[in-house]
Amino acid sequence: MLSSLSKKRILTGLQPSGALHIGNYLGALKPLIDLSNDPENETFLMVADYHALTSVRDGNQLREHTHQIVRDYLAAGVNKDNVTLFRQSENPHHMELSWVFNCLVTVPFLMQAHSYKDKVAKGMDANAGLFTYPMLMAADIVLYDIDFVPVGEDQRQHLEYTREAVTKFHNAYGELFKEPKEVIVKGVGVVPGTDGQKMSKSYKNTIPLFGTREEIQKAVMSIVTDSSGDKPEHVFNIHTIIYRVLGKSQVELDALYHEHTGKYKALKDALVEDIEKVVAPMRERRAAITDDQIRRILMSGAEKARAESALKMTVVRERIGISF
Amino acid sequence: MLSSLSKKRILTGLQPSGALHIGNYLGALKPLIDLSNDPENETFLMVADYHALTSVRDGNQLREHTHQIVRDYLAAGVNKDNVTLFRQSENPHHMELSWVFNCLVTVPFLMQAHSYKDKVAKGMDANAGLFTYPMLMAADIVLYDIDFVPVGEDQRQHLEYTREAVTKFHNAYGELFKEPKEVIVKGVGVVPGTDGQKMSKSYKNTIPLFGTREEIQKAVMSIVTDSSGDKPEHVFNIHTIIYRVLGKSQVELDALYHEHTGKYKALKDALVEDIEKVVAPMRERRAAITDDQIRRILMSGAEKARAESALKMTVVRERIGISF
Repeated sequence: MLSSLSKKRILTGLQPSGALHIGNYLGALKPLIDLSNDPENETFLMVADYHALTSVRDGNQLREHTHQIVRDYLAAGVNKDNVTLFRQSENPHHMELSWVFNCLVTVPFLMQAHSYKDKVAKGMDANAGLFTYPMLMAADIVLYDIDFVPVGEDQRQHLEYTREAVTKFHNAYGELFKEPKEVIVKGVGVVPGTDGQKMSKSYKNTIPLFGTREEIQKAVMSIVTDSSGDKPEHVFNIHTIIYRVLGKSQVELDALYHEHTGKYKALKDALVEDIEKVVAPMRERRAAITDDQIRRILMSGAEKARAESALKMTVVRERIGISF
Repeated sequence: MLSSLSKKRILTGLQPSGALHIGNYLGALKPLIDLSNDPENETFLMVADYHALTSVRDGNQLREHTHQIVRDYLAAGVNKDNVTLFRQSENPHHMELSWVFNCLVTVPFLMQAHSYKDKVAKGMDANAGLFTYPMLMAADIVLYDIDFVPVGEDQRQHLEYTREAVTKFHNAYGELFKEPKEVIVKGVGVVPGTDGQKMSKSYKNTIPLFGTREEIQKAVMSIVTDSSGDKPEHVFNIHTIIYRVLGKSQVELDALYHEHTGKYKALKDALVEDIEKVVAPMRERRAAITDDQIRRILMSGAEKARAESALKMTVVRERIGISF
């Protein structure tokens, strides 16, 4: 098909790092799911489990979180038929190509990577996996002829490292890879947490995405309100984003808050109902997904991923001299 | 078989780095071939082609040198039925396990490696492949439950790095790997080159192992002699080692040199004849080895290697959390 030639390929690495909150959904999952459901795009969703090994040393936790992230993305609206959903660890080409890139870039170059410097500055274990990760990421991307990688504003450098690895390879062995571009994710902006700061697991200010109704209620009730104002600012700010997702108008929300001036409990109850409108259908879908379905999706995704990268790796091996 | 349980496993990495000289044969190949033909041992010979990528960026050269080293070892007396002869690049478990080790050791630890520090000091490109190579070597070794790795005196540290990686893995994920020991190769001592220094490609003082008779003759004729002495020292020293390999007595050699005092040409001719006794049968065997035989041996070796390491990697994946 001619049309498929013009499709743009997108890759996102999913971090198997535990329970999601509505900040993750509104800021990252939803925009990504919208991209993946756009017929102009061809999306690769890779569970970055090799990457996770740079910080996780608990096998059961990693295995559990891997299943969890896949279940969460499917529940949140990823259509398995529109995406290639696979685990990084199931395609050996990632490791192999990252070795080739490692042999082409210098140690001082990797030392300059923000992600490494920042993590070391934060006291994280400066392991060699973390150090060479930019070259594994480069392999993740170029193996699949990716056009765009959705990243946050702070992650531009990752793509620069990938392009540098590609340039080094091309200089040594001739043209082969597509140079990927970053696409800055247009989310809903910063989603505030229950204390008004950015919602983040590390601030313990989250509203769970896949919690029970009671858990969501409890989190919403804990939103900090200032009794001196006539409007609960933090409640209103979260509600504004939820309204946008629900396609309801700001005018309507303003009217609601005007009508219930000073009635914080009633407004929080209304927010719980509106969050439920967004998450309840996901929660139901999620409960219906079996472990076997997840395994089957990951297995068929891995098969597709390996088939996609096989031809490219055959050419790489030929060029670097490890073919017969 | 009960006896095979007590066999000792040995691994040697073969460097695909071009033409061998008789110094390589006498100092390294012959002792290794003797080890591999000892029924007490089970030998793995791995062409370290991934390692070669840390310094070679010419695909045709690497491919050619890979074939050449295999042909040379077979010609020199490796019995393909006694060894597992394979290319590092054909078993993806090496890369995968080295990644696991990379995530367990720190950057400062790898910075201490002599091999890295020395190469950087010599002005070699400090690429990240060279930097993380000790962890790939660790994987090379422990994947096959290796007992002993023959090394030169200067390479003891390599095995220390392997043992450190093993310890880190055991601390994080429980006992699994055998801790390898180094075995210092008992060669014939330093083999002198045509100028009396240690025979080495970089000194351009070599006598080729698989040269034609004429090439060997030319190299022997170029051995530096001091016309003031009554005995050509360098000729005599090389001759002594060749005599030992041929199982001939020192007394006989002394008699020969006594008889031909001052007759350098005659003594050099005698050395050519004796080298020919060692190398001519190898040269003949070498000429009879086809490219297809090499491919077939490497393919079946790779299959054996993968089958050997598969169970171990299954357990590794289970422990680190990338299994289903």
